[in-house]
Amino acid sequence: MNGRIIKGRITTIRRLLSKKKFGCLIIVKPANVSYVTGFSGDDSWAIIAPKTVYLVTDSRYTEQAAGECRNCEIIERKGPITQATAKTINGLKNVRTLGVESSCSIAVFKALQKKLKKRLRPAENIVEQVRIVKDDGEIASIKKAADIAAKALKNILKDIKAGVSENELAGKLDLQIRLLGGKTGFETIVAFGPNASRPHHQPGDRILKTNDTVLIDFGARYKGYCSDITRCFSVGKPDVLYKRVYKAVKEAHDAAIKMVKAGVEIVKVDSAARGVIAKYDLPVYGHGTGHGLGLEIHEGPTLTKKIKGKLKAGMVFTIEPAVYMPGKLGVRIEDDVLVTKTACKILTSNCPKKNY
Amino acid sequence: MNGRIIKGRITTIRRLLSKKKFGCLIIVKPANVSYVTGFSGDDSWAIIAPKTVYLVTDSRYTEQAAGECRNCEIIERKGPITQATAKTINGLKNVRTLGVESSCSIAVFKALQKKLKKRLRPAENIVEQVRIVKDDGEIASIKKAADIAAKALKNILKDIKAGVSENELAGKLDLQIRLLGGKTGFETIVAFGPNASRPHHQPGDRILKTNDTVLIDFGARYKGYCSDITRCFSVGKPDVLYKRVYKAVKEAHDAAIKMVKAGVEIVKVDSAARGVIAKYDLPVYGHGTGHGLGLEIHEGPTLTKKIKGKLKAGMVFTIEPAVYMPGKLGVRIEDDVLVTKTACKILTSNCPKKNY
Repeated sequence: MNGRIIKGRITTIRRLLSKKKFGCLIIVKPANVSYVTGFSGDDSWAIIAPKTVYLVTDSRYTEQAAGECRNCEIIERKGPITQATAKTINGLKNVRTLGVESSCSIAVFKALQKKLKKRLRPAENIVEQVRIVKDDGEIASIKKAADIAAKALKNILKDIKAGVSENELAGKLDLQIRLLGGKTGFETIVAFGPNASRPHHQPGDRILKTNDTVLIDFGARYKGYCSDITRCFSVGKPDVLYKRVYKAVKEAHDAAIKMVKAGVEIVKVDSAARGVIAKYDLPVYGHGTGHGLGLEIHEGPTLTKKIKGKLKAGMVFTIEPAVYMPGKLGVRIEDDVLVTKTACKILTSNCPKKNY
Repeated sequence: MNGRIIKGRITTIRRLLSKKKFGCLIIVKPANVSYVTGFSGDDSWAIIAPKTVYLVTDSRYTEQAAGECRNCEIIERKGPITQATAKTINGLKNVRTLGVESSCSIAVFKALQKKLKKRLRPAENIVEQVRIVKDDGEIASIKKAADIAAKALKNILKDIKAGVSENELAGKLDLQIRLLGGKTGFETIVAFGPNASRPHHQPGDRILKTNDTVLIDFGARYKGYCSDITRCFSVGKPDVLYKRVYKAVKEAHDAAIKMVKAGVEIVKVDSAARGVIAKYDLPVYGHGTGHGLGLEIHEGPTLTKKIKGKLKAGMVFTIEPAVYMPGKLGVRIEDDVLVTKTACKILTSNCPKKNY
């Protein structure tokens, strides 16, 4: 990880902390820890103090942290993480009030409060508001994660034939992602036929038939950054209902993408997609039209009916409208897009989709 | 999931709640939600009210929940989960004080407090203390998860040869786990040579040499339950240091297992293993000697230097002493054991290990 980039992030975060009168911030969310330190392990916290960034970790990770976190002082805890963290912060003379990320548990908050000789307050959304706009390096990693996923799907197309099980196909796709230098970004969803009506179906023993439909929702992780793609298609000839639904979802997907541009109200992207599904008189999906992605598979911005705010250049998120008809079918089409000043760039364009 | 078993769990939990003067409990941790409802999805909460158990979920999961949670009333939220939860609980006339699991975030706790017309307190460790002793069905699932993992490793032994990368081997092992009807329990660790000195090494591009050493830490998940196994061995002839370290770790592992029996102080199991490593004058591992496993890969009991309490029949945990020598090697041997009244049963005995 480039030291200059990390330093820039820390400077921005310190500015936000100062606005909120926090002398220091305890970062507990793994993706945020990674963002400010470069550390890729687990169970570790970062402390952004006025002059130093600390990484509080344990013996399982000290060797790794020494290699990854050149800008940090590494603290190897022997006891509870709250104790090592409180000890370090209690030693900071000029800090009176500090924040801890509000995603930390109540149990942790209370343990910290007990051990700290300073005033502790929950801090909402500090690192996340910096992370929501991606820099060039982050975009390159997401693009690479998208390319790995696209290639992996291409490599298993030959395995998508009658007789294969959902579970087997998911496993083969995951292996391809690894062979191409990535990790799986989240638990791969493979759903055949009516199973696709469950948006988060877990692949099981169902066997693909000669005439059947397939939904694959998958992604790769590269240098910590995720991609997230869904493709749907039929094996054999699609029936009339499937074709009609697919056409509607594809049109909804394209309508949403067409709206994406810096400065646009986020809610307009969501409603563009929903409007098309409703126009076809099909059931409108209950989930959001998309979600941000980066170091986490779900992060800001979320594209929902009630979201406030405008798109900014550098945001990266999914567009994934869908139609679910329990007992019949499920169709979702998902791509990852980068907001630019004039429109958007589809990062997953290397992953072809059907036209019915 | 057997309805009678779930009802038994709920009865036990209601008894614990009544002792703490909680009229009701909000369960937010996915494994706990699964334990009391049978639900296997994400992003959902359970409410244990005096007469009813509710599952608060969203449209992505309602179809699945209807199939999995026969004893629950399913609430499909349209807005935030805190809102739907508070609304349900505000309607419970006889509830004045309630608990929410202390693993919930401060942000969630505050949002609930704002919306609830009742007194809310953090509840520590309620479902976990029931989960720590496994019933026969749970033990059967862990055993099956262990058998799947053991068979998967056996199936890829032919691939462990010079030229294979860590990442490729990890992917092939994961695929075998799927083909055998399981899921991967956690991110598979494959570490060659000195990489094994990092307890949580992430498999990378390193290629196995003709004379090399291998550490594989992996597990399967079956019906939600995990297994967790580590095996180490050399490809080609092990050198003197590796053999000596391996012998020490194996002896430490066996010494710990020999101690396991209902009624024994947990700390004695931990110290039995550490004592052997120290006797060999090798660096003693910084992590615990083991951790409970079940619906979570890490749960109670934890086997550490400072742990208080005694073993109970029905507890299931890992035994995993190790020696790490950065730049040189890492050896860890890990099995899953079930505590019985008279000794213990090794659930991972189908996964053979080397003797050097």
